[in-house]
Parts: sequence; C-alpha cells; structure tokens
Amino acid sequence: MQDEPEVTVLRYGHRPGRDDRMTTHVGLTARALGADRVVFPDNAGQSLETVEDITGRFGGPFTVELTDRLNAFIRDWEGVVVHLTMYGERVQDVEEAVRERHQSEPILVVVGGEKVPFEVYEEADYNVGVTNQPHSEVAGLAVFLDRLFDGRELEREWEDADRTVIPKATGKKVVEPGSAEAAAVGDADADADANADDA
Amino acid sequence: MQDEPEVTVLRYGHRPGRDDRMTTHVGLTARALGADRVVFPDNAGQSLETVEDITGRFGGPFTVELTDRLNAFIRDWEGVVVHLTMYGERVQDVEEAVRERHQSEPILVVVGGEKVPFEVYEEADYNVGVTNQPHSEVAGLAVFLDRLFDGRELEREWEDADRTVIPKATGKKVVEPGSAEAAAVGDADADADANADDA
Repeated sequence: MQDEPEVTVLRYGHRPGRDDRMTTHVGLTARALGADRVVFPDNAGQSLETVEDITGRFGGPFTVELTDRLNAFIRDWEGVVVHLTMYGERVQDVEEAVRERHQSEPILVVVGGEKVPFEVYEEADYNVGVTNQPHSEVAGLAVFLDRLFDGRELEREWEDADRTVIPKATGKKVVEPGSAEAAAVGDADADADANADDA
Repeated sequence: MQDEPEVTVLRYGHRPGRDDRMTTHVGLTARALGADRVVFPDNAGQSLETVEDITGRFGGPFTVELTDRLNAFIRDWEGVVVHLTMYGERVQDVEEAVRERHQSEPILVVVGGEKVPFEVYEEADYNVGVTNQPHSEVAGLAVFLDRLFDGRELEREWEDADRTVIPKATGKKVVEPGSAEAAAVGDADADADANADDA
C-alpha cells in the first residue's frame, strides 16, 4: 500500500483452463487486500486481463505482471520471502516477526498452485501455514494479508476508479467517483458482481 | 467450534463443472477456519464428496449437507444471518456487533455464487462487505471467519483424524495422530497438498 514497503504476491504455477478462476481470484484478492502487485506465470494471460480490467474500473494503484522465471523471481527478491503452505509454521506464531520486517523491507508472498518444488521451501524466509489444514490458497492469502496489514488494508483509498461501491445495509449502490451528486448506477449495471466470477 | 453457538456456511448457488472448485474451496475454508457445517445446493454433490473426504482424513467434527431449498434455509434460520457481499456494510464496522450476538446465537454465513436475489439481502440481518471491491467469495469468507472467531479458530483441535500436519520451518511433516513415535509420512504421501486441488 501507499507509504509502506512493497508487497508483491507471486502465484507459483498455473494450469490454463483448470486454474483460471483460482489464479484470477488470487490476483483480485491481492489487489483488494492491500498488495501492490501480483505476478502470474506467463501462461496466465487470461487472469492478467481480468485483473487489469477490474483495476481499470475499480481503481489502483495495482500492477499485474507475467514472468517466465518463477524460481529466479523468488531467488532475486530483495526483501523477505513468505511462502504460504499448509506444512509451514503457524501464522499466529510468525506474523509478528513478518510485520516487524515489513516496516522496512518489501515482502514477497508466494502462493502455490500445482505442486511447489522443495527449492521454494528453501528459498523462503518463512514457510507459513494459515492453519495446517488443506483448504484454499485464496483463503490463506486473504487471512495472511489481513494480518500482515493489521486491518489497515480495509481503509485504503482507490485512485482513478470509474466506479465506487457505497457500503449499504441492504441493496446495492454504485457511484461514479467525483460526480457532484454521485449518480447511482442501478443493479442492471452490476456487471462486476460480488466475485467477479464472470469477469 | 466446540463450546460455542453453531456457525454454518451456506453456499448460495452452484454451477456444476464451472463452480466445482470454488464451491469445494468454500467448504474447505469453512471447515479449516472454525465453522461447524457447510450447506451446498443439491447440485454440488461432487464438492460434498471432496469436503467429506478431507474431513475423514484430517478430522472433525465438521458436517457437509446439501439442500434444495436455499431461500427457505435462510428464512427458517433461528439466529443471525450474515450475507457476505461487496455491496454490504464494511466488515470493520459491523464485526463487533456480530461477535457479540454470536456469544449467544448461532450464525448463518451466506456466501454468494451466481447472482444472489434481492430476497437474500432482505432476509439477512447483516449484509457485510470484506472490502467493497470485487475479489473472491473464498477470500471474503476467510477474513470474515478469522474476525468472527478473533483468531481462536487457529487453535482448534481436530478429532478422529487419520493424519496431522506438524508445523515446520522447512519441508513437510505429516504424522498419524496417536502413534507413539508419530511416524513421519513422507512427501510421497502428501496427496492432500496445500490446496486440496486434486482432491
């Protein structure tokens, strides 16, 4: 987030077709929950397009990139490498150490897709389990970021958005930022529905 | 979780094939992060099987059910209904009220899939946005549960597990609970990999 050392999320591994939605959700979760950038494997161009599209409409800054060198990206990272895995140390035991290092160092959060090679476990400064149970890389990433930022990510502001959702007890309200009497865009235009599923 | 009013997660909507992994991840996230039960639409039998399989191997208690009456399930809920939606009130503004009610009342957490009808917004006691940005229903559920339970879910213990992952700074260690010298089950048996992707 602005005024903090960078946080980048690296999606390690992607199977086109099969993983499209999961990879897209990793990217959208990274964006929504305070990361500055997501990096996908170079065969995940479709997920890149979706995340860029959402960023164009709902605002940034947020960067999406592809890489064809996942291992080198991790090896060359100048800062702290956190690898999320159900085999790692308990998040509640290491989060404070990671938060402290994030005060001065950029963080790379590696999120596994297909099987992650042992090299990644070795390169990581922290292998971290959000529970030691099998669940979802998207869920693990979400809880990790919320704890890394200590909830500050929920207060972040968005620049250059075409539309902004106004929190509402019942129903949906979407406005164009900056419009004097921010005009309500009706339900019919809610093409970016809760999960960007069809994005 | 044990000794607390029940928390049930209801997956609202499911498109077989297309949504299988997302629905499975909703179920596994519910289990891993402290819910007692997940209820899927009746066309999500494949996701039910996966979540039951994981529960059989990694422990419970955790229940998976199907329903053919989503709306009635919400309407008949005796307790608090929370609907997660990017259009709702900010989680940081309502979480304390929900936590307080959970001290004495069961909570139903509704997680949207396809478009959610307006009736659900109306039936909900709280429409809650984990950010007002489009991202992932799995990420929203994860952050919501972590905040509902205030991190207690990370300490829960599992009963009747065939295997238990031992947190480790590097590598993987899986043991059979109860074995005197808990025997390490090697990497080769790590069929329940981080994300249960192939489960």
